[in-house]
Amino acid sequence: MQPIQQVAIVGGTHGNEFSGIYLIRQYQRQPELLQRQSFHAWTLFANPQAHSANKRYLDADLNRQFRREDLDNPSHSNYEQSRAKVIDAVLGPKGNPKVDLVIDLHNTTSNMGPVLILTQAGDFYNQLAGYVKMKMPEAVISCDEDHLPAEEHKLLCTTGRYGVIVEVGPQPQSVLRQDVLEQMHSMTQHILDFADLYNLRQLPELPKEVEAYRYLHSIKLPVNEQGERLGMVHNHVQDKDFKPIHPGDPIFKLFNGGEICYDGPDVVYPSFINEAAYYDNNLAMSLNEKITLRVTPVATD
Amino acid sequence: MQPIQQVAIVGGTHGNEFSGIYLIRQYQRQPELLQRQSFHAWTLFANPQAHSANKRYLDADLNRQFRREDLDNPSHSNYEQSRAKVIDAVLGPKGNPKVDLVIDLHNTTSNMGPVLILTQAGDFYNQLAGYVKMKMPEAVISCDEDHLPAEEHKLLCTTGRYGVIVEVGPQPQSVLRQDVLEQMHSMTQHILDFADLYNLRQLPELPKEVEAYRYLHSIKLPVNEQGERLGMVHNHVQDKDFKPIHPGDPIFKLFNGGEICYDGPDVVYPSFINEAAYYDNNLAMSLNEKITLRVTPVATD
Repeated sequence: MQPIQQVAIVGGTHGNEFSGIYLIRQYQRQPELLQRQSFHAWTLFANPQAHSANKRYLDADLNRQFRREDLDNPSHSNYEQSRAKVIDAVLGPKGNPKVDLVIDLHNTTSNMGPVLILTQAGDFYNQLAGYVKMKMPEAVISCDEDHLPAEEHKLLCTTGRYGVIVEVGPQPQSVLRQDVLEQMHSMTQHILDFADLYNLRQLPELPKEVEAYRYLHSIKLPVNEQGERLGMVHNHVQDKDFKPIHPGDPIFKLFNGGEICYDGPDVVYPSFINEAAYYDNNLAMSLNEKITLRVTPVATD
Repeated sequence: MQPIQQVAIVGGTHGNEFSGIYLIRQYQRQPELLQRQSFHAWTLFANPQAHSANKRYLDADLNRQFRREDLDNPSHSNYEQSRAKVIDAVLGPKGNPKVDLVIDLHNTTSNMGPVLILTQAGDFYNQLAGYVKMKMPEAVISCDEDHLPAEEHKLLCTTGRYGVIVEVGPQPQSVLRQDVLEQMHSMTQHILDFADLYNLRQLPELPKEVEAYRYLHSIKLPVNEQGERLGMVHNHVQDKDFKPIHPGDPIFKLFNGGEICYDGPDVVYPSFINEAAYYDNNLAMSLNEKITLRVTPVATD
């Protein structure tokens, strides 16, 4: 077992997601909240320029710029593409990283609660999920693109040896809510505690299984041939992230008064419902399946 | 009594407040929703450039550009200052307006529900408030700067002979929620119905008194000498728009763990709590007093 020696906590990957930005400032003022016996932890403000502009990004979404191929391409030169190369040099380089664990802090306008997003698979992640869920039962475990090899991942947190996203909502863009900040702080503290106990081989007995949601695909708002939106997320679904959608349930309300119902064959579980940042691409929500993660029993000394 | 002959329904005064923009599109597709027997109604998209940029405004807040003195000053020449002059020429000119009633549609990220904001005083407004409250008991009546003469008002809706704001939340910036859109539509329809019945002298018997909230002043987030924020809106207040704040109630949670309590002498009623658009100026919330509007009995033929 290779210990976690370097931990980076990243805020402001999206400039208008305020909780992470304020949380890393808090940790800079009180570094005792970050440090543990067995590793060194530090903070990184990923996109201060976007925050100054009070925008998600200036030129392109920073959290989509971390494919190895894109990082290695100097002609990808806009602001966030350049910033991604710098961050990869600091945290990574991806494939041979300096940092063992990256915790990337995000907000959503969707009613998702505190979510731990795992973007890769493995015993470490399942144990982490078991620990977080044990300490914070209201937490949701989400698996996103965990079948992809790290080098093909676009996400910032995949620059480290391990990487997770802490995603908390609902919070409007450019707003700081006390409840959301406190949930983000709690989950981050549990992750740091886990890494320390993991290093020290002092993890408590973990649940054998953890309920999680695995991303399947996204669905788009209905549009006409000119690309104009014909409807919106239905009241029946709004704010009901991770609640089941059954075949035939209404999911879109059309401006002409009609409805569109879910026509898939199976029960699915939505997330990022009506997320403000996904309007650019007309994305209405992500659909997930409910899965069970098996937690490898902890080896203790 | 001078009848209401021209009604303008304005959406997109702020480019990232989506409900009004979608509602006027709806009314353009279904003009029968706008028209009444006794007046002509039409729509205006106030700031399509800001909407295209997915921002509240490009250069300056459009809804602060309508003081007569500013409208008459050609050196106030940025985008929104220029657009304000155009809108004043179309709806106004303020002081001698073509439009008898301006209904300006807005969203807030605050948990305010459907709010009718009266920016001027008079029998017409109090009767309107009585009618809206009778038809839509969940509506809140808010009086803002109703002591100012129209020429000193900065608000778009004061270009008309009468003008009101329909303000509905909570809705994140750049998001369209079905529930919020439907509340905005309902309140707008009641206002149009009122204007028609007013013209026809067919108003029903109205309540003699209407509860309302009158704006007193705004309070700012705590900041240090460098202007950095030291705290955020307290959980005790968050989402509790129009609920009483008593002297001594906590209103800010400080990042150092402390609290700041309300130190005024009287019970006040907050609105625009933690509104995203007011962070620029560090405004945390507006404070209001609860008042009673007296409704002049309706004269019928």
